Amino acid sequence: MNIILFGGDGFCGWPTALHLSELGHSIVIVDNLSRRKIDIELQVESLTPIAPIDRRIETWKEVSGKDIKFLHFDIAQDYEILLRTIKEEKPDAVVHFAEQRAAPYSMKSSRHKIYTVNNNLNATNNLCCSIVESGFDIHLVHLGTMGVYGYGTSGMKIPEGYLNVELKEGNKSAEMEILYPAHPGSIYHMTKTQDQLFFYFYNKNDKLRITDLHQGIVWGTQTDQTKRHDNLINRFDYDGDYGTVLNRFLMQSAMGYPLTVHGTGGQTRAFIHIKDTAKCIQIALENPPQANERVKIYNQMVETHRVKDLANKVSQLTNAEITYLKNPRNEAAENDLHVKNDCFLSDGLLPTTLDEGLLEEVIEIAEKFKSRADTTKILCKSNWSNA
Amino acid sequence: MNIILFGGDGFCGWPTALHLSELGHSIVIVDNLSRRKIDIELQVESLTPIAPIDRRIETWKEVSGKDIKFLHFDIAQDYEILLRTIKEEKPDAVVHFAEQRAAPYSMKSSRHKIYTVNNNLNATNNLCCSIVESGFDIHLVHLGTMGVYGYGTSGMKIPEGYLNVELKEGNKSAEMEILYPAHPGSIYHMTKTQDQLFFYFYNKNDKLRITDLHQGIVWGTQTDQTKRHDNLINRFDYDGDYGTVLNRFLMQSAMGYPLTVHGTGGQTRAFIHIKDTAKCIQIALENPPQANERVKIYNQMVETHRVKDLANKVSQLTNAEITYLKNPRNEAAENDLHVKNDCFLSDGLLPTTLDEGLLEEVIEIAEKFKSRADTTKILCKSNWSNA
Repeated sequence: MNIILFGGDGFCGWPTALHLSELGHSIVIVDNLSRRKIDIELQVESLTPIAPIDRRIETWKEVSGKDIKFLHFDIAQDYEILLRTIKEEKPDAVVHFAEQRAAPYSMKSSRHKIYTVNNNLNATNNLCCSIVESGFDIHLVHLGTMGVYGYGTSGMKIPEGYLNVELKEGNKSAEMEILYPAHPGSIYHMTKTQDQLFFYFYNKNDKLRITDLHQGIVWGTQTDQTKRHDNLINRFDYDGDYGTVLNRFLMQSAMGYPLTVHGTGGQTRAFIHIKDTAKCIQIALENPPQANERVKIYNQMVETHRVKDLANKVSQLTNAEITYLKNPRNEAAENDLHVKNDCFLSDGLLPTTLDEGLLEEVIEIAEKFKSRADTTKILCKSNWSNA
Repeated sequence: MNIILFGGDGFCGWPTALHLSELGHSIVIVDNLSRRKIDIELQVESLTPIAPIDRRIETWKEVSGKDIKFLHFDIAQDYEILLRTIKEEKPDAVVHFAEQRAAPYSMKSSRHKIYTVNNNLNATNNLCCSIVESGFDIHLVHLGTMGVYGYGTSGMKIPEGYLNVELKEGNKSAEMEILYPAHPGSIYHMTKTQDQLFFYFYNKNDKLRITDLHQGIVWGTQTDQTKRHDNLINRFDYDGDYGTVLNRFLMQSAMGYPLTVHGTGGQTRAFIHIKDTAKCIQIALENPPQANERVKIYNQMVETHRVKDLANKVSQLTNAEITYLKNPRNEAAENDLHVKNDCFLSDGLLPTTLDEGLLEEVIEIAEKFKSRADTTKILCKSNWSNA
């Protein structure tokens, strides 16, 4: 397949590009390098020393013999370049990672809220619009988030995107299939719920074929491809904005600090290893929706854990202590989370679990690169609201 | 009250500004004059000769003795000016009309889709964000659309914004209150469904007090205030992009052409007179949500009519013939529409119906100004999709 990866230099995009390239697909990466520029703004770097994108691509050519093309532009700003790229590359499929993806970053200030809304919504609309204008039948795969569901609504299992509900009015009633009601917890998550409405509309009106992946929290750093050379290493974020809870625990323990749990640690989250992210996108690309099919939604996650259980797992491997802090997010202190993920499992995903992969993160990433860490950056400083 | 009207120079904004000014409120109009500029792009003008905004405001001062302040900037682009305006004016309430409001215009081309998304979503987000940043407790009233509901889903009465549904999983079940599932029919309508998610989030996260008015198609031109001087006259759009179906019928009959009905004319639409729009906004302002109340949603409409019945009503007054054309929109040929509008009726709205007001439109607007019409502009030329 000819595939364009929008946001292909990022944490999920880069390993996915290599995974798909190794499988023999023709890969174009489009990226505005915004994630690297945000590192400069936040005065922090990936713990792992990532190479510039051109060097990454040259190295991949050396170790695999395969070409990847890189185009540097901003799909949220440069519609005409985007349209020309679609027309020239004639992709069979595009994968859309080109969104600001950190909830705490999206809540830092008004400027960050406005940037996240403007970037994420225009990127998604421009991409849908350019595919329609090109006239080609291109499968759009989008990396969404489990966060569109909110956490643990009603205590029932979260389905894959759609919900059957019963409407009642007096003694009349009707069955209806709806998108799972949106319940976003941050500006970032809100933009992903708004993305769902772009997809719903362009699918309905223009018959765009779309797969939307509602992904859990990604953990792990390396894949079989990124391990093949130091220049291919993937990023590892540990700062308060972009670092996930697990990565911050890993860094705290490597530095000999206590692990900081917000609130009671009773919040349950869904997780998936970065290797499985790449594999899921492969599966999504190999199983596109049919013509006239509604938007296909997969829950892209493997297992759920409570935050305090994560802290305990890291503590057991490293003997780190655990301390509890006030939670800056507006959310319930404790929640259950039951998620359906039948689609990927039935399509052949053989997932990596936390119990299998956590030790590698401790030794090969956190311990190995801890001298590069800026320990002042580990705590989250965004306040969700003043209300 | 101190009130800022964003988009206060437009078709709904201007009569609302005068209505609220007459009631004694202190009014600031913020407008980027985009609607007048789109007239230039479309090479068409309001059938009624509208005065420039400064002349409108000077004339209002002469006839009423009341001041209205005008600020010219773009709230979708100029966040810092918006924030400064909120901080300086310290409004008790703001009314948000500042969105591109024509479905056909939003579907004309990729450029128009992108403009509508960019303008409408950034305007709404910037406004919510600036209120939060100001720290003031300001009531936000937004002019939304009945189109967020789609038309006639399930045949049951459309409630005011929220829906109680029953979820089932095996033998478990739960009741849940959700936003009415979005089913937008154009890019314009889609942005309004995305606006709902902005409001949902800012209300939940920042306790913003918001009223969202789901308005039907507005008809009628003049209000008691706009009639008081020629310089105060409201706009009347009859072109294929901004003219509503009723206005195009009125113009076609004034010019001696047949009335053009798209499809079977079985599409049912909700209507409200411009006088009642202004009155409803007054009612919404006088009945703000309480602190910690969810977003308050009113259906702002008075009556429903099928398009072919509208054509018949105009034809009976004017003897115009009726012809049927292919429908460019992706929508069901026929639909019922049952809408709850209890909130405004219980809050004291005494509406103007089509049967009472239509003759005035025929005589005082269409006949009176028909020499100003460009008859090449009456038909809609937007294609909803190529799919």
